[in-house]
Amino acid sequence: MAAEIVNSGSELESDVDPAIDPAFALHRGGKMAVRATVPVRDTDDLSLAYTPGVAKVCSAIAEQPDLVHDYTWKSQVVAVVTDGTAVLGLGDIGPEASLPVMEGKAILFKQFGGVDAVPIALDCTDVDEIVETVVRMAPSFGGVNLEDISAPRCFEIERRLQERLDIPVFHDDQHGTAVVTLAALRNAARLRGVELGALRAVISGAGAAGVAIARILVEAGIGDVTVCDRKGIVSLDRADLTDVKRELAGFTNRAGLTGSLETAMEGADVFIGVSGGTVPEEAVARMAADAFVFAMANPTPEIHPDVARKYASVVATGRSDYPNQINNVLAFPGIFAGALQVRASRITEGMKLAAADALASVVADELSAEKVIPSPFDERVAPAVTAAVAAAARAEGVARR
Amino acid sequence: MAAEIVNSGSELESDVDPAIDPAFALHRGGKMAVRATVPVRDTDDLSLAYTPGVAKVCSAIAEQPDLVHDYTWKSQVVAVVTDGTAVLGLGDIGPEASLPVMEGKAILFKQFGGVDAVPIALDCTDVDEIVETVVRMAPSFGGVNLEDISAPRCFEIERRLQERLDIPVFHDDQHGTAVVTLAALRNAARLRGVELGALRAVISGAGAAGVAIARILVEAGIGDVTVCDRKGIVSLDRADLTDVKRELAGFTNRAGLTGSLETAMEGADVFIGVSGGTVPEEAVARMAADAFVFAMANPTPEIHPDVARKYASVVATGRSDYPNQINNVLAFPGIFAGALQVRASRITEGMKLAAADALASVVADELSAEKVIPSPFDERVAPAVTAAVAAAARAEGVARR
Repeated sequence: MAAEIVNSGSELESDVDPAIDPAFALHRGGKMAVRATVPVRDTDDLSLAYTPGVAKVCSAIAEQPDLVHDYTWKSQVVAVVTDGTAVLGLGDIGPEASLPVMEGKAILFKQFGGVDAVPIALDCTDVDEIVETVVRMAPSFGGVNLEDISAPRCFEIERRLQERLDIPVFHDDQHGTAVVTLAALRNAARLRGVELGALRAVISGAGAAGVAIARILVEAGIGDVTVCDRKGIVSLDRADLTDVKRELAGFTNRAGLTGSLETAMEGADVFIGVSGGTVPEEAVARMAADAFVFAMANPTPEIHPDVARKYASVVATGRSDYPNQINNVLAFPGIFAGALQVRASRITEGMKLAAADALASVVADELSAEKVIPSPFDERVAPAVTAAVAAAARAEGVARR
Repeated sequence: MAAEIVNSGSELESDVDPAIDPAFALHRGGKMAVRATVPVRDTDDLSLAYTPGVAKVCSAIAEQPDLVHDYTWKSQVVAVVTDGTAVLGLGDIGPEASLPVMEGKAILFKQFGGVDAVPIALDCTDVDEIVETVVRMAPSFGGVNLEDISAPRCFEIERRLQERLDIPVFHDDQHGTAVVTLAALRNAARLRGVELGALRAVISGAGAAGVAIARILVEAGIGDVTVCDRKGIVSLDRADLTDVKRELAGFTNRAGLTGSLETAMEGADVFIGVSGGTVPEEAVARMAADAFVFAMANPTPEIHPDVARKYASVVATGRSDYPNQINNVLAFPGIFAGALQVRASRITEGMKLAAADALASVVADELSAEKVIPSPFDERVAPAVTAAVAAAARAEGVARR
């Protein structure tokens, strides 16, 4: 969720008393366990689930590798892989310290998508080493969810793993956020009765989330997207761009703007904040009438919702205590559940767009300025996203069953 | 269990009909799943188990790394790692085909030891690559159970991982088998009223299990151990020995015997078969009176139990349908449970000996020729082994709590 993208002052404090803090109490002993789904009560059970019975199943898979999906948990288990370099707003805290987040992710996979997930926190940060390690462990898993890996390394790691593996590899900090953001934007436009193509959008933040959001918005038909990083508008005439930002500048900033975020925001219809910075009220005031403000920094939105509401027709944040929470948990469980259901070899752009459409459609008949996106606990969400992603995988020819 | 060590003709056949075979029916969809151990029902739950609450726990671990054991499942989860090169009696069938065995192992860990375990089948067989891969994923786990990795690679992989990691690394095909064998031998000697030190033992098989059994027998005080491989007695005057077998020859074969298995067996008190070969009845007949025959090849013991009983006072096999089954499940769940309980940095020889003693003691008051080892389903086993291993870890100074 957006909270994973941006720095959070308060979360950096750990001067809490574990003895009384409810978060520590809840985390004691961890948040997950494994369980057997078959009986192991007696010798007969053992002779089927283990030797000698298991040998027949192993032999069958050796002769017909595809059977591994039918007779093991491979096709329903996802590795939640991190190197601990960009954890929540905490930054590079290392693999062990990232484990509570990976466990949390794993139980969200199970709770919301029925997908089994295993935290794999890696003790290496070199791109080649991470890629090789994940490739070597891939036979055990049906998918790989990359998590909290710092940009720009996360882009190359995801790309190279997608090239090497025939199972879905999905960096949730990028695509999960992008899918949920697009869904909310689609409903905000629906509410205001405008086409996405008519909107001019500004994204504050050019990290994992900002880049992925820019990409999916352009794919969804929003021709005019401008992205800003700490130094201002990401434009081709800047000499300080990374390869990723140079590519980004190539397909965004149609107007060829240069300068500050405030410049980009003038007359814009949409502000999307995934930066953690703060935006002055005057800049919001100079946006187009009835603008949409998605200020997703956690816990402190770039623009306070109360301020945003003075100018914007729809306001969303990353927080659960304001309306319209942009929360990745609305997307990743259903996206993986759908991909695994049809044994997709990868998660395509079309599958992400289908996920966003399905997510938006869940509340299409109940739209209001306070409800352009469903609640994470809306039980219609995961089934809708799962079905849409599975169908899109079939339509795009990446489904294998 | 012994079944994992030796080749099994029948298990190689997979000309079975998955539709009607009960093993395939049981394996459909896999044998395990993960579950959340904390509630994720509403926003409040989410804010504790995930953001923002989880950030405090992450920060605390970043500042005090040892807390990872208290606030994640690390200290209760074991990676069951294989490269699929020596699976059961099937040999090198690759990582995917080995998964049903690894899942079986994982659910036995849970069922018998309350230990969470995750199958990690690696798509690499190079020793350096396997070691590096396991080292990189180690932050996520409290222990590593190596499984079905071919000899002699398994010895180097285990040694190097033990040098690199501060968590228990245990190759069950070696040490689990050795612990259970020693326990059975201890009770057999108890039953006959002889000291272990007075026994002359012959081991048929110089693979993972044979080497580990020879080692633990010598540590347990059996001074006269002779090991045979396919070419006969492993003795220093052989030019064809691997490094491991040369080392083996250095601390076994006190009498300096050369020649065949039959030669070694003449007058021997103990035969331990972990080879899968067959032994002629005459060789058994020439053993000492009241000998012990542990013929652990599965499904076909080196010596048929009915034949062995004609000469031996105690007969054990790897099969569940004869008395005295030498089954690794009697050892590994409790050994890891005990090691994890005290956060042991490794599993020492002393901990293995303690496990064997505890395992033997469970049935010390009910000893008979048909019961020198408990049933895998004897509920006293795991608690006894766990407590003994934890105590031994403390005594040997490798416990960290």
